[in-house]
Amino acid sequence: MISKQLAGEKAVEFIKADMTIGLGTGSTVYWTIHRLGKMVKNGLQIRAIPTSKQTESLAKELGIPMTSFSEVSQLDLTIDGADEIDTHFNLIKGGGGALLREKLVAAASKRFIIAADDSNLVHTLGKFPLPVEVVPFAWEVTAQRIASLNCKPVLRMNNKKPYITDNGNFILDCSFEKIENPLDLSEKLKLIPGVVETGLFIDMADLIIVGSKNDIRLINKN
Amino acid sequence: MISKQLAGEKAVEFIKADMTIGLGTGSTVYWTIHRLGKMVKNGLQIRAIPTSKQTESLAKELGIPMTSFSEVSQLDLTIDGADEIDTHFNLIKGGGGALLREKLVAAASKRFIIAADDSNLVHTLGKFPLPVEVVPFAWEVTAQRIASLNCKPVLRMNNKKPYITDNGNFILDCSFEKIENPLDLSEKLKLIPGVVETGLFIDMADLIIVGSKNDIRLINKN
Repeated sequence: MISKQLAGEKAVEFIKADMTIGLGTGSTVYWTIHRLGKMVKNGLQIRAIPTSKQTESLAKELGIPMTSFSEVSQLDLTIDGADEIDTHFNLIKGGGGALLREKLVAAASKRFIIAADDSNLVHTLGKFPLPVEVVPFAWEVTAQRIASLNCKPVLRMNNKKPYITDNGNFILDCSFEKIENPLDLSEKLKLIPGVVETGLFIDMADLIIVGSKNDIRLINKN
Repeated sequence: MISKQLAGEKAVEFIKADMTIGLGTGSTVYWTIHRLGKMVKNGLQIRAIPTSKQTESLAKELGIPMTSFSEVSQLDLTIDGADEIDTHFNLIKGGGGALLREKLVAAASKRFIIAADDSNLVHTLGKFPLPVEVVPFAWEVTAQRIASLNCKPVLRMNNKKPYITDNGNFILDCSFEKIENPLDLSEKLKLIPGVVETGLFIDMADLIIVGSKNDIRLINKN
């Protein structure tokens, strides 16, 4: 866990006064949010938009000022984690279930920083089952259509009931094993009726912060 | 209204015993459902899947037996209305707000019949504002992206609050005036993060039943 903490805490160095910040969800950004909370206590002026109810309550607890898309239409920076990162900066996200809001926030950000550890770096995406958010109505039919793209979709459960996202939808965890063309798959999935969003983040990240046991590396896109 | 009634009631002639039927939503299918209720009372054996809570409660009231996608994966026939129908059998639907479930049910049906009247027939789609179902979170950003496709999106309201679909989402009514390439627009819209579904039904209808003051016409696709 120390590597996640290193990466998560490093990320706050990119936060400057008066920025509007998108706050991701999960075990790495947890450390970012905690560190940011301390900076706010010490007088840093920023506003944040959370990507999940979980992150929202943590940030509120720490006294981080919140805003929303009714007040701002563009964010300066979003910091988030990822389940898999390939060599082309494509990501699989959504292990924590927040992929839809994470994508909406990232897409509205000028800069998108991923904090991760070595275990998240892969050559080809797909070992981690791809989370796909689907409408509960007729989800069985939607799952069949997704399966026809050569994967095994499994309905995510929580206490013997379907897991419900912050947006009231279900998640299908889809084992593809190898995703050779992430952009093509992402579009094919999104065009299926009943699919709300996929966990494939194509060419969105600008900087990857990779923590390992002893050090931190920064991988810039350009 | 007599023309809608004529078309809606004509549609039941395509319903046969033991079929699983998708029941649309709106003022034309209202007549189909009423007539179907009478046929069920007279002994017709069918099962139905409703496309909205509104249709579900009407059908229940009339004693029509219901099923769901946990029991069936394909329907024999769906009967629904449309706001606009072009000469290539493309549709704009969603004036009543049920476009997402309507599309899921239609897509799972072997046959899709539209009951309409003369006023729904157009040369080019787009005079009727296209309903687009979007996630409430960051809807303002989603609306900006949709607007960049050359339309004016207006958030549908209900008693001074945003109208909420059966799936917990918002609807943007998007005035395009003329939609020259419905398939292309449909895909571009669906690929925008935050867009759940569009009211464009491309090449899905198999038969159009058109009621007018005195008569009924059937327009077959093939």
